Amino acid sequence: MSKPYVRLDKNNAAVLLVDHQAGLLSLVRDIDPDRFKNNVLALADLAKYFKLPTILTTSFETGPNGPLVPELKEIFPDASYIARPGQINAWDNEEFLAAVKATGKKQLIIAGVVTEVCVAFPTLSALAEGYDVFVVTDASGTFNELTRDSAWERMTAAGAQLMTWFGVACELHRDWRNDIEGLGALFSNHIPDYRNLITSYTALTK
Amino acid sequence: MSKPYVRLDKNNAAVLLVDHQAGLLSLVRDIDPDRFKNNVLALADLAKYFKLPTILTTSFETGPNGPLVPELKEIFPDASYIARPGQINAWDNEEFLAAVKATGKKQLIIAGVVTEVCVAFPTLSALAEGYDVFVVTDASGTFNELTRDSAWERMTAAGAQLMTWFGVACELHRDWRNDIEGLGALFSNHIPDYRNLITSYTALTK
Amino acid sequence: MSKPYVRLDKNNAAVLLVDHQAGLLSLVRDIDPDRFKNNVLALADLAKYFKLPTILTTSFETGPNGPLVPELKEIFPDASYIARPGQINAWDNEEFLAAVKATGKKQLIIAGVVTEVCVAFPTLSALAEGYDVFVVTDASGTFNELTRDSAWERMTAAGAQLMTWFGVACELHRDWRNDIEGLGALFSNHIPDYRNLITSYTALTK
Amino acid sequence: MSKPYVRLDKNNAAVLLVDHQAGLLSLVRDIDPDRFKNNVLALADLAKYFKLPTILTTSFETGPNGPLVPELKEIFPDASYIARPGQINAWDNEEFLAAVKATGKKQLIIAGVVTEVCVAFPTLSALAEGYDVFVVTDASGTFNELTRDSAWERMTAAGAQLMTWFGVACELHRDWRNDIEGLGALFSNHIPDYRNLITSYTALTK
Amino acid sequence: MSKPYVRLDKNNAAVLLVDHQAGLLSLVRDIDPDRFKNNVLALADLAKYFKLPTILTTSFETGPNGPLVPELKEIFPDASYIARPGQINAWDNEEFLAAVKATGKKQLIIAGVVTEVCVAFPTLSALAEGYDVFVVTDASGTFNELTRDSAWERMTAAGAQLMTWFGVACELHRDWRNDIEGLGALFSNHIPDYRNLITSYTALTK
Amino acid sequence: MSKPYVRLDKNNAAVLLVDHQAGLLSLVRDIDPDRFKNNVLALADLAKYFKLPTILTTSFETGPNGPLVPELKEIFPDASYIARPGQINAWDNEEFLAAVKATGKKQLIIAGVVTEVCVAFPTLSALAEGYDVFVVTDASGTFNELTRDSAWERMTAAGAQLMTWFGVACELHRDWRNDIEGLGALFSNHIPDYRNLITSYTALTK
Amino acid sequence: MSKPYVRLDKNNAAVLLVDHQAGLLSLVRDIDPDRFKNNVLALADLAKYFKLPTILTTSFETGPNGPLVPELKEIFPDASYIARPGQINAWDNEEFLAAVKATGKKQLIIAGVVTEVCVAFPTLSALAEGYDVFVVTDASGTFNELTRDSAWERMTAAGAQLMTWFGVACELHRDWRNDIEGLGALFSNHIPDYRNLITSYTALTK
Amino acid sequence: MSKPYVRLDKNNAAVLLVDHQAGLLSLVRDIDPDRFKNNVLALADLAKYFKLPTILTTSFETGPNGPLVPELKEIFPDASYIARPGQINAWDNEEFLAAVKATGKKQLIIAGVVTEVCVAFPTLSALAEGYDVFVVTDASGTFNELTRDSAWERMTAAGAQLMTWFGVACELHRDWRNDIEGLGALFSNHIPDYRNLITSYTALTK
Repeated sequence: MSKPYVRLDKNNAAVLLVDHQAGLLSLVRDIDPDRFKNNVLALADLAKYFKLPTILTTSFETGPNGPLVPELKEIFPDASYIARPGQINAWDNEEFLAAVKATGKKQLIIAGVVTEVCVAFPTLSALAEGYDVFVVTDASGTFNELTRDSAWERMTAAGAQLMTWFGVACELHRDWRNDIEGLGALFSNHIPDYRNLITSYTALTK
Repeated sequence: MSKPYVRLDKNNAAVLLVDHQAGLLSLVRDIDPDRFKNNVLALADLAKYFKLPTILTTSFETGPNGPLVPELKEIFPDASYIARPGQINAWDNEEFLAAVKATGKKQLIIAGVVTEVCVAFPTLSALAEGYDVFVVTDASGTFNELTRDSAWERMTAAGAQLMTWFGVACELHRDWRNDIEGLGALFSNHIPDYRNLITSYTALTK
Repeated sequence: MSKPYVRLDKNNAAVLLVDHQAGLLSLVRDIDPDRFKNNVLALADLAKYFKLPTILTTSFETGPNGPLVPELKEIFPDASYIARPGQINAWDNEEFLAAVKATGKKQLIIAGVVTEVCVAFPTLSALAEGYDVFVVTDASGTFNELTRDSAWERMTAAGAQLMTWFGVACELHRDWRNDIEGLGALFSNHIPDYRNLITSYTALTK
Repeated sequence: MSKPYVRLDKNNAAVLLVDHQAGLLSLVRDIDPDRFKNNVLALADLAKYFKLPTILTTSFETGPNGPLVPELKEIFPDASYIARPGQINAWDNEEFLAAVKATGKKQLIIAGVVTEVCVAFPTLSALAEGYDVFVVTDASGTFNELTRDSAWERMTAAGAQLMTWFGVACELHRDWRNDIEGLGALFSNHIPDYRNLITSYTALTK
Repeated sequence: MSKPYVRLDKNNAAVLLVDHQAGLLSLVRDIDPDRFKNNVLALADLAKYFKLPTILTTSFETGPNGPLVPELKEIFPDASYIARPGQINAWDNEEFLAAVKATGKKQLIIAGVVTEVCVAFPTLSALAEGYDVFVVTDASGTFNELTRDSAWERMTAAGAQLMTWFGVACELHRDWRNDIEGLGALFSNHIPDYRNLITSYTALTK
Repeated sequence: MSKPYVRLDKNNAAVLLVDHQAGLLSLVRDIDPDRFKNNVLALADLAKYFKLPTILTTSFETGPNGPLVPELKEIFPDASYIARPGQINAWDNEEFLAAVKATGKKQLIIAGVVTEVCVAFPTLSALAEGYDVFVVTDASGTFNELTRDSAWERMTAAGAQLMTWFGVACELHRDWRNDIEGLGALFSNHIPDYRNLITSYTALTK
Repeated sequence: MSKPYVRLDKNNAAVLLVDHQAGLLSLVRDIDPDRFKNNVLALADLAKYFKLPTILTTSFETGPNGPLVPELKEIFPDASYIARPGQINAWDNEEFLAAVKATGKKQLIIAGVVTEVCVAFPTLSALAEGYDVFVVTDASGTFNELTRDSAWERMTAAGAQLMTWFGVACELHRDWRNDIEGLGALFSNHIPDYRNLITSYTALTK
Repeated sequence: MSKPYVRLDKNNAAVLLVDHQAGLLSLVRDIDPDRFKNNVLALADLAKYFKLPTILTTSFETGPNGPLVPELKEIFPDASYIARPGQINAWDNEEFLAAVKATGKKQLIIAGVVTEVCVAFPTLSALAEGYDVFVVTDASGTFNELTRDSAWERMTAAGAQLMTWFGVACELHRDWRNDIEGLGALFSNHIPDYRNLITSYTALTK
């Protein structure tokens, strides 16, 4: 009766970053801005670290929604980048859909702004087409907690798996021995408490 | 095993506003009054904007529950309006049920006061008769968060989809190009942060 | 795929009040004591009002858990009262089980202290035997919110319906016209905001 | 040893609205946007209602801070409006200072964005020059509660009185009989709960 | 430099209950309604228990503010009762002021709705005339915590002492031996946790 | 459609304590440190009390993650102890897996740090292999509540049962008469409120 | 205008522990029980560590308030112990007052249950007699945060200094070199995070 | 009666960063780690930007408290750096005191870990010697909010001014025209919302 364990596989996963735009970010109030910025960049860094195909998309970026945050452009200079002319659900945009299919991956890691629209709509569409969808909840934001809770409920009922960026990184990596320094650097750059552990450890073992 | 994606369709949806009465509103304490008032009016405005058939109903409006809030009457001067003589579950009122059926729609967007009764009871009844039900959680209110959480749990277990007014508007609209100004006005009137984005954008592009 | 709507029926429902004992109540910290006391008494009053068969039970009441709170004894002087000699899950006590079966009801309305044990265990047992179980979440209490949330998750996964006392009263009553004054009195005695509405209404209509 | 009671006097009070600009408002996260917007407009409406001299000022409104929110311009078409070229503390701007002095009032009612800078700096300066300062805390906003609490502490230590717009309106009005309808309208427009009381009252007394 | 200890003295204290009206109570959202109702009645019961002269007053009770809650009338059938025709600050009403002076007491215990107006204004006025003022914070309520915090700050800066009803009762009583049963009954009726202690204690010592 | 009631059985249960290491514990911020320490030790004490086979495992304990907390080593001097060389999911470690299988138990009680990785990964793996998994949520910790909620959602969707240590103890014990003093001591050592009940009870019955 | 820095001096300080009784502790709800128990024992341990004269007192310990918690008796077998026959303010008890004076200390470190009565009353009395009073806020507890905040306000206005046990220990110790191991043990026993730091440090430096 | 306005002056201010050490940071739980890290670095960057003399100090950095966080060393390679051998109050260290005096400044901007000890003790000592002290509350951290609130109360009673880093920057800068780009860069680097405003503004004005 329960969902089977669909485990993230770095050879079968792609990342979709939806509408992290300068204007829309001012709508996000269910998470502290410092923490949210860090989470989005952590997700971007892990996508790059694991060399996952990554697709960037924006909604009306020439209007009040504003441009994509520049950091994401810099991290993914060569990624597919679809500036949607009007479709609210990115999945309705043929170019976006083609880019997703072109990755050849069945596991989609999705984050975006705002959660109940820019994340939930493509999540529900992708699930309907048989993809496994992993929503990165801490790299997605929206107006308030009530809205977020409603969106989570809708997505999980449809079969999405809720994760946060740290869990995604760990499930993709599988074993520290694959690259201790690489994973350690990712954690050190985005988890102050972990960085402190490394600082103290390094000082004592030098 | 998961629910399929039932997507809101403006040609197949009706709105049910249940018991937003002046007296009952004093019972609502799981959401700030300023925000709640704005959400209810936003839902009403979007129902009107998308020309969705809308049904208003009240419970004992001549007693302490008080009259329907006047703003809703003004927005929907010609809507079906059923002042129920006693039925707590609106679905038990034949006139209300007839009005729902007369819309010919299979997707019901429901909001009301209080969540676990005036919203949950007709939601459960409608689901039992095969309707798709979308509960607008931020335009529904109740005594406290514990009560709300219990009600959400009961409704989602029965198959209801939880949404908030902004997600409803976006899912109905599908594409900004259908009417940029209309959707923009709806957001500007009910999302202060979005209004500010437009204000800054307009000042710079003039 | 979803649960069908099992609607409370006053002719087919019994109430189980489990371990509302003076000592155990000091463990309850997921709800304010004034509110909790009011909710428990409201549930008791509605059980009496709707003449639902009601069963009281306690665990080790001669030890530190303490005696049943006296108000419940006073409201139900003739109810089945099972002081369990040791069974933690009331359902494991044959006398309790016999009392439940003797009611001849298939709908069990359960509340108690603490939620994850005294409520959850008999709830899970009753569900396993085919009863419909309605947990009254606001008349049940436990150590903290984390514990409560875990308990709710376990019970809902097993098929329990979560409700609060107000929803129970409304679903049992069905129609105000069955007895306006009786239901009004119940609300007035246990919902200060509703009492205020009645006070203002009465003053103006005198 | 205690501060004497300096009571607001509508004949001796002026209102200073500092930097309520479209861009800066996106920084405000210690108060819900719907509530904050309502509070700022309520303060503006009361300033107009009591015919208090009102001064508007902005900081760098041609840059990212954005323009003054249009509603304030509309409410005060003839008010002094000082677009400061660079001074962060409005009190350092000679034109602003002259406008304050030109009012001839000794009681200054101040609100703005962000609290610890745009409100606190002119508050401290005005107190130092012997003005009585009333900070309207719910029409002032900032990054988070920690920042707000620090700012309140600094201003109260310097002698500022903390108030909210409702208290300001009541202290200025003194007696309902001065104008029942005017004050009632102000409350009805900005306090949903009060509007509901009026709605129910009106329905019953018609 | 610090305030001296002004200790409540049952021979020198009077109680002022300001505007606990059915309509105004719907504005109170900084405290749970069940708890607030209990606190107000606890304060009333202690005033009666210690035979403190008590003054009741209301603002516009024939309008939307609604009548005084009936419980207070019942507890104090013979108390001074001033229905103010319009003065917002009760201290501005000559009849109220005369009633206060007629008590001959110098210590005023004040509670009311809403805190920053109906409590704060007479508190500031009384302090200005040399009274010692004890604000019963948990029997006073207002719109939200931000408003409450501002009001507390203003009142304490002016010299008011903040207390809650339990502390008032204890400071007035001084010594359990003055009447163990009377004080115990007051606590048992208004503190569920204390009632439970007594229940368990009584069961074991019988 | 609902999950059947799988009841903890002390003859069929094993305990897995995953990565409670001194360094990793500094990452835990969804629960107060004093409470968390108490919960972990309570779970350990109950595992010992019920003589459940217990497996300890750590991740990179010679690096910044730090050593297992010494208390756990002391409580289980003879337990299986697997210091994993690199596998993030303990289930991927053959030695760990062998230890689990060697217990011969089908019910796994799991707790660890951090919840969404060290607990969720082996939970999902064990469920996939047909084990019944009971997650002890209050002896598991992670970065923040958003992360925890996501992890709970993922695990419950896969069929895990969420419990807290107190519920685990009660479900294993079944009947107080099996050993009143033993269970009482467990509660007294880890629930201050329960200890107080016993203290008062003992004083009165001596 | 500001208070001078009165610094705790281990040669001039005494500790007063007021009414930490098993029954009264069930009233404490402004702090988590695990944390509160730890704080009280930490304060007791530091009093013993610094050899500060310590006075224990209780109120009606033979009634429902219950006996002093046994741990405190064990830590201070030879301390002054005054079981007050009825005085609510311990300062009103001559034996208690004599014990305080007999210490010959001018700095009083006070903690107790409940904050606004058992702590605040002797604090205000002691300040009035010229003592320096240091309230240990995290080893004192009461009904809820509103009550605590009111009590803090009253005590600080009268000149009390608010501290927590960790600050008290640090201010008394002055310099780690006075006894590194002793202070480290105190922290290790009562601060899980600090214990973890020591565990990791010790493992790496062995 | 009120404190005069002591305004920060970049020619008369020094910055003291006390005990921001890798181990001690794991004790900080009154503020989110991402936000706290950002605040500390923002304060450091502003100290450097305004060329304020800055003093770094640590407590037992070779023990479990751990080394100074490396970022601070990098930002201030030439700053006074006092590794205290044992004094808990930095002001008790003669080298530290000499460094403070050597700056020749009378305004001290202090932040550190933990607030009630490492910040409060030197703050109280400095105030006692006539310095003006500005505590940067959001770059200081401690165990929990109760502890923080107690510490704030103690410091403000002694005359400290509470500020946050943003307010410090604004008060030091005085006028945007002194260097628009420099201040803008500081805000852009440490306030995500402000960075977004600049991003949108820049995109539209290019």
